[in-house]
Amino acid sequence: MRTRLLLLGAGRSASSLIQYMLRHAPTENWFLTVADANPAHLVPVLAAHSEYARAVPFSTDNEALLEELVTQADVVISMLPALLHPVVARACVRHGRHLATASYVSPEIRELHDDAQAAGITLLMECGLDPGLDHMSAMRAIAHIRARGGRLTSFKSYCGGLLAPAAEGDNPWKYKFTWNPRNVVLAGQSTAKFLENGHPRFIPYQQLFGRTETLTLPNYGEFEGYANRDSLSYRAPYGLDDIPTILRGTLRRPGYCAAWQALVRLGLTDDGVNLDNPETMTWAELVEAYLPTSLIPHLDLSARVAAYLGLNPTGEEMGRLQWLGLFSDRPVGHAQATPAQLLERLLADKWQLQPHDHDLIVMQHLFEYELNGRTHRLTSSLAVEGDDATHTGMAKTVGLPLGMAVRRLVRGEVAQRGVLIPVQPELYEPILEELAAEYGIRFHEEEY
Amino acid sequence: MRTRLLLLGAGRSASSLIQYMLRHAPTENWFLTVADANPAHLVPVLAAHSEYARAVPFSTDNEALLEELVTQADVVISMLPALLHPVVARACVRHGRHLATASYVSPEIRELHDDAQAAGITLLMECGLDPGLDHMSAMRAIAHIRARGGRLTSFKSYCGGLLAPAAEGDNPWKYKFTWNPRNVVLAGQSTAKFLENGHPRFIPYQQLFGRTETLTLPNYGEFEGYANRDSLSYRAPYGLDDIPTILRGTLRRPGYCAAWQALVRLGLTDDGVNLDNPETMTWAELVEAYLPTSLIPHLDLSARVAAYLGLNPTGEEMGRLQWLGLFSDRPVGHAQATPAQLLERLLADKWQLQPHDHDLIVMQHLFEYELNGRTHRLTSSLAVEGDDATHTGMAKTVGLPLGMAVRRLVRGEVAQRGVLIPVQPELYEPILEELAAEYGIRFHEEEY
Repeated sequence: MRTRLLLLGAGRSASSLIQYMLRHAPTENWFLTVADANPAHLVPVLAAHSEYARAVPFSTDNEALLEELVTQADVVISMLPALLHPVVARACVRHGRHLATASYVSPEIRELHDDAQAAGITLLMECGLDPGLDHMSAMRAIAHIRARGGRLTSFKSYCGGLLAPAAEGDNPWKYKFTWNPRNVVLAGQSTAKFLENGHPRFIPYQQLFGRTETLTLPNYGEFEGYANRDSLSYRAPYGLDDIPTILRGTLRRPGYCAAWQALVRLGLTDDGVNLDNPETMTWAELVEAYLPTSLIPHLDLSARVAAYLGLNPTGEEMGRLQWLGLFSDRPVGHAQATPAQLLERLLADKWQLQPHDHDLIVMQHLFEYELNGRTHRLTSSLAVEGDDATHTGMAKTVGLPLGMAVRRLVRGEVAQRGVLIPVQPELYEPILEELAAEYGIRFHEEEY
Repeated sequence: MRTRLLLLGAGRSASSLIQYMLRHAPTENWFLTVADANPAHLVPVLAAHSEYARAVPFSTDNEALLEELVTQADVVISMLPALLHPVVARACVRHGRHLATASYVSPEIRELHDDAQAAGITLLMECGLDPGLDHMSAMRAIAHIRARGGRLTSFKSYCGGLLAPAAEGDNPWKYKFTWNPRNVVLAGQSTAKFLENGHPRFIPYQQLFGRTETLTLPNYGEFEGYANRDSLSYRAPYGLDDIPTILRGTLRRPGYCAAWQALVRLGLTDDGVNLDNPETMTWAELVEAYLPTSLIPHLDLSARVAAYLGLNPTGEEMGRLQWLGLFSDRPVGHAQATPAQLLERLLADKWQLQPHDHDLIVMQHLFEYELNGRTHRLTSSLAVEGDDATHTGMAKTVGLPLGMAVRRLVRGEVAQRGVLIPVQPELYEPILEELAAEYGIRFHEEEY
């Protein structure tokens, strides 16, 4: 009997996952149903594979169709927005089907743990890049350190979706949107919390992009990392409840954060206020509206912004703001908007990925541990460039681990039932092995 | 036939309203039903008035009881939390009863306008202090200016609930909680917007308490005002659509805002993050957690905070923070809390109103207008001290205008139906007159 796999959602980031599933369908005896709102774009992809794959139209608000598709599958893979996963997961529990996703375990998913166990199924979550590959690679390194008798004292882990060096061009931010622009604009809008030498550390939003750490990745040079919202929640799943230092962060190219901090301080990332603006308001008028009137009226706008923010008027931060057109007569183009909506609109244009641009996924774990009375340092680094506009670094690093996790699940190599994330060696060892051997996606470790 | 009045909610701020209703019940031929969750405290108040008043127990989640009470009344007055007003207003529309409140017209209330008109009833909103007395007094001054042929070019209006000078004592903030502490802690957490000389002005939260204006009130000295969230929404109801400058703000005693700004910048007013803290964490530990570690480790905590915020270590701002106990070993006393919850807890203790303390309500409108080719300035100022712990300035200035508005409504002197706020002279003239003549609550006008 063939195993029937259902993939819900086949957006841009599902490309490498679909390719992986098609590659293994004949030998693993799978039949893959890809359900998407616009299945037309899948026809050429699936055409050569009609014996073991088909596309069907699907709408996320059609719960009856969801039920029908789930009952017809043995394992469900969801690449739908994370918000929809509770509905999908409940259908899987009802009909006794396994589920695999690349999304975080939300409180609603966590609540399904007992029901999923009772139904004898696995809700295998957090199997993409971040969350996903981060867990797998960190847990492998942690296990190695422990096996040697080491005691972990510090764990910092950074990840970022950036640009291959050739795509950075003359963009001084060295950044373009490779995923949801709204999430990038609203990033960090809460107090970040982490642990440093046994002490809690909190960074409020207004300071977040001003307190970065510099990291170096083999072959890719320098990056800067800012702290993510909640680093503490990683302690329990990683078994690091007593670790003195733990930090999770996001990587950008050097200079990005200081310039972004200027946007935050101006007020342009606020999504909580409707500015009552006409769409003809210019960016210069918008920025002007944020400056105190008393500010040295004879200087031009950019010089006054520099004075207001305490920045060098001809420095790099101001250069990046200028490059965005923040002081230009360009209309904001959207009436009755929040500052964050206007900024997103501007950035969507300035930071648009071009067809020939390749993206770059970077991840680095930094461990400190004590062994035989000495402090050791270990870094584990990953850099993955996109192959082309379809098989991006993001699509590969999200989709391949997920596909590999599903393969293990279908083969019966995942014994645990209920809600699960890939922190067990039975799951991460073969996946990391396959990523390295088959796709050249491997972590580079340095001990010093 | 006696007019049956129903007062929903009889908390602390309803004292002066109840007194007003009891005073006029015999002559106006009213019977007053006061419905409250804890009617016991009303028994002594109403005992001497049993012919025309009674108290009944009431629970806001008992909709059947609400229906019953509304059908038994001719006019409903609600002092319940504003959130509950849509439910009350819908009941009033269904049963054809007038409603009066001191709360803002919410979008849900606005939606009831047509239904209320069809039912022949008035939903008389915003009849307290702010909103309420602010509308009445501003509209009267605006009408006077217009009647003389003046053209308004600037309207700024500030209000604050503060302390009578004798109650300020040695509290360097010169502030105690006279209303909802949570609202005070979370005040201003959105971009403020107003108009200045025809240009929009936006102030993000992080800057808000750093951009204040100083005002002087007759007999009460100096105050400082910070901008409220949305000053623009006042243009339409006041008929000031083309005014070049409009600003609404909140008053504090000088020095409060700069010290509050320090709390904001530290991150202590954030309500969006659970700090995962134990209740035994001390305030010094909490504040320490917000400082970058690199900061001059040999200095004591308060000196490092001053350096971090760029404040004079022996200046007034730091003095106010010190007075709160921010650098002390006092436990925060609440586990798993947001910074704002911890700050509210600390302030609830430090800023607690004492039984002998009197509060002070201050309001000032500042108008500029052109008349006969000259620019004129007019200020209209109000200061109301509480009589005692029951009849506070807040209770008087919220309750008396509301009571007077109800009296006009019952007498049939309010012709308009649907949703209404007190911007018509038929309503505000007699109320302002009665406040001045009967209670000495009068605005002091200065033209210069």
